[in-house]
Amino acid sequence: MSSPLILINLKTYDEGYGHRARKIAESAELIAGESGVRIGIAPNFMEIHPMSHHFSVPVYAQHTDGIGAGAHTGHVLAAAVRHAGAHGTLINHSERRLTLADVGAAVEAAKTAGLETVVCTNNVATSAAAASFAPDYVAIEPPELIGSGVSVSKADPEIIRRSVDAVTRVDPGVKILTGAGIQSGECVKIALDLGTEGVLLASSVVKAADPEAVLRDLISLL
Amino acid sequence: MSSPLILINLKTYDEGYGHRARKIAESAELIAGESGVRIGIAPNFMEIHPMSHHFSVPVYAQHTDGIGAGAHTGHVLAAAVRHAGAHGTLINHSERRLTLADVGAAVEAAKTAGLETVVCTNNVATSAAAASFAPDYVAIEPPELIGSGVSVSKADPEIIRRSVDAVTRVDPGVKILTGAGIQSGECVKIALDLGTEGVLLASSVVKAADPEAVLRDLISLL
Amino acid sequence: MSSPLILINLKTYDEGYGHRARKIAESAELIAGESGVRIGIAPNFMEIHPMSHHFSVPVYAQHTDGIGAGAHTGHVLAAAVRHAGAHGTLINHSERRLTLADVGAAVEAAKTAGLETVVCTNNVATSAAAASFAPDYVAIEPPELIGSGVSVSKADPEIIRRSVDAVTRVDPGVKILTGAGIQSGECVKIALDLGTEGVLLASSVVKAADPEAVLRDLISLL
Amino acid sequence: MSSPLILINLKTYDEGYGHRARKIAESAELIAGESGVRIGIAPNFMEIHPMSHHFSVPVYAQHTDGIGAGAHTGHVLAAAVRHAGAHGTLINHSERRLTLADVGAAVEAAKTAGLETVVCTNNVATSAAAASFAPDYVAIEPPELIGSGVSVSKADPEIIRRSVDAVTRVDPGVKILTGAGIQSGECVKIALDLGTEGVLLASSVVKAADPEAVLRDLISLL
Repeated sequence: MSSPLILINLKTYDEGYGHRARKIAESAELIAGESGVRIGIAPNFMEIHPMSHHFSVPVYAQHTDGIGAGAHTGHVLAAAVRHAGAHGTLINHSERRLTLADVGAAVEAAKTAGLETVVCTNNVATSAAAASFAPDYVAIEPPELIGSGVSVSKADPEIIRRSVDAVTRVDPGVKILTGAGIQSGECVKIALDLGTEGVLLASSVVKAADPEAVLRDLISLL
Repeated sequence: MSSPLILINLKTYDEGYGHRARKIAESAELIAGESGVRIGIAPNFMEIHPMSHHFSVPVYAQHTDGIGAGAHTGHVLAAAVRHAGAHGTLINHSERRLTLADVGAAVEAAKTAGLETVVCTNNVATSAAAASFAPDYVAIEPPELIGSGVSVSKADPEIIRRSVDAVTRVDPGVKILTGAGIQSGECVKIALDLGTEGVLLASSVVKAADPEAVLRDLISLL
Repeated sequence: MSSPLILINLKTYDEGYGHRARKIAESAELIAGESGVRIGIAPNFMEIHPMSHHFSVPVYAQHTDGIGAGAHTGHVLAAAVRHAGAHGTLINHSERRLTLADVGAAVEAAKTAGLETVVCTNNVATSAAAASFAPDYVAIEPPELIGSGVSVSKADPEIIRRSVDAVTRVDPGVKILTGAGIQSGECVKIALDLGTEGVLLASSVVKAADPEAVLRDLISLL
Repeated sequence: MSSPLILINLKTYDEGYGHRARKIAESAELIAGESGVRIGIAPNFMEIHPMSHHFSVPVYAQHTDGIGAGAHTGHVLAAAVRHAGAHGTLINHSERRLTLADVGAAVEAAKTAGLETVVCTNNVATSAAAASFAPDYVAIEPPELIGSGVSVSKADPEIIRRSVDAVTRVDPGVKILTGAGIQSGECVKIALDLGTEGVLLASSVVKAADPEAVLRDLISLL
């Protein structure tokens, strides 16, 4: 059984580039090295190249499009993301929704480029739907919990449990991340107990005064 | 076993309003009455009210949004569509794609309003995904066949067969329409033989010199 | 000099269809008849046909697309809106934003169809930009005031004044509506004093216990 | 008077990253150095950082969003683009259209971040509209000429001339690029004679067997 995945989304926060992003990446590298837990980072597109070249942690794009090479100005080509050094990509994040057809095309394009795929969803039915595309991961982010400070695993464990069931019924090879309301090591522990294989989180690490301490806490019960 | 569904999409064609639309609706009413086959019409939003009040054929919206009543100027509220007399609605047509989350929300909103739901998809994987939302119908429109004049049932029967399998595996209660490349009664016959329960078509009826004759041919082998 | 325009947007409110919408239309017809003030109504698409046929007040669509007749399922064809009886249309409402190119195309298509055009904007620069398309009206809705209960004409008269200047500089033939924060006859009076030729409003009429009384107040100082 | 700008859009072409992109950048650097003409390059987002650090030519993003720092996963923050080393950015390219409000917000955000702004438009009216936002450049790309192999300056010089007039009338400080149908030095010459201050082009350089030769030809009559 592989290690759980702790995936940190830097969004377009001020802390998402420059020396503060570097500090988060260094902390991730350190804690991952100490603990053996996989810790990934999803910076903005411009940071994919330098982060992938300066740090050993797996780097994820925050979005890739379901396009092939061609005349798509301003879009994100999976092959170019891979070439820049990324290990994987988020697809269909709640802040960057795609059409149903484009979710399928984006998963396909990312797989072809050799990227690990993490499709974000918002409820049980969309999680099952996303599983039809056979991504590596589905990350469930119940909208009422995003940025709420309330732990999904405490507030609404049923949505996680039912999503795990629904995804597994569609494709047992698809793994699940708990994608909102993760604040602490206890949250991570509960997320794994509910049958998911990691967490997707953002502000609780990125906005922390001491990201290293938060990361250390997050993996403390694994 | 219920009758197959022949669903005519008037799009925003010139023939989609005014006396030519009325003539198509009259033909549909006539042929449906003679044959007992269900023939539905999806006109533009403005025509839903008059068509529903002047004709007995079931009327479908071409799109509804996944919203509730509120401040959504220019959007399409399922309850208002129902109030205008519609029987059902297309959702996620290839010319009006929705995000994955909005497909789910639109199916939910339409069901709540008492509308029959027809979710359009473009391949096997998106058909399976759409089935996760438990709509009444999934209508498969392989993009390479839309408006091509080539019959889907002849050109690529496998995509239909595999979509039927995939949808049935997710939810055996979801029916399937063959949604592109339908020109004739023989096409309809093959579509049903492949396991689908009707067809979604547009130009071959709407742009016909004699829509009544085309409709009569379409149902001739049922 | 023509009468100011009071334009009521029914959005997708519950009150926007059925007997409550009819009551609003009746009140508008009554007050317009008594006062000689132009009062228009923008209902959902399905209500355009029945409202235009049952009432004498000018009816506006809440949105039209910059398309011609053709394969545009789920889109809104200006010619079909006109055919249904509409007098004009909103374009680019804050809840239904269009791309820059589509604003231009939508104004063009609506004019070709014989519809009066009301392009919504959010600040001075977008108002000047919208004026480049030579619509009949630009309606300014400062986002911080939408639904705030604060009167734009009191809270921020400068944005209206500067928008009037900017629009006039680009095209003196374009009229301006004050599009947010209108609650009373005094607000309407101030809006006109600032150089605009009417108001666009929604909840203060639509959600009122007595829409007729609100309308009577709105036109009371004209 | 400043040098004209030759701006090369690498789009998401296969040649837009890796050694072929590097070769284009090297050629641009060489020809710019020899001639004193400004030659800019707009690569995909991931290439902004390495290109800006390895080459002296000004690098442009293909798109930036009208957002501030915050929770905008998968979007493009102007400040992060600037931090990566970019000199400027395209906004509203025909393959990445923005809403009217977002064009305004994107220009504002890019200026605040210290980026040169190039807003793409498709006709005279949208060019005038774009000028209302006071970008550094408006780049006109008549849609019928994009990728057509027909020179805009030969096929339709009037659209360029009238756009120059319209933009200048709105804001004489805004410069104009001819943005489609540029194949040769003669095209560039005509573009400048029509009153524009440079060109935006893509495939004729990017897809060339010998980009250096094409660039040398493009600047040959300046």
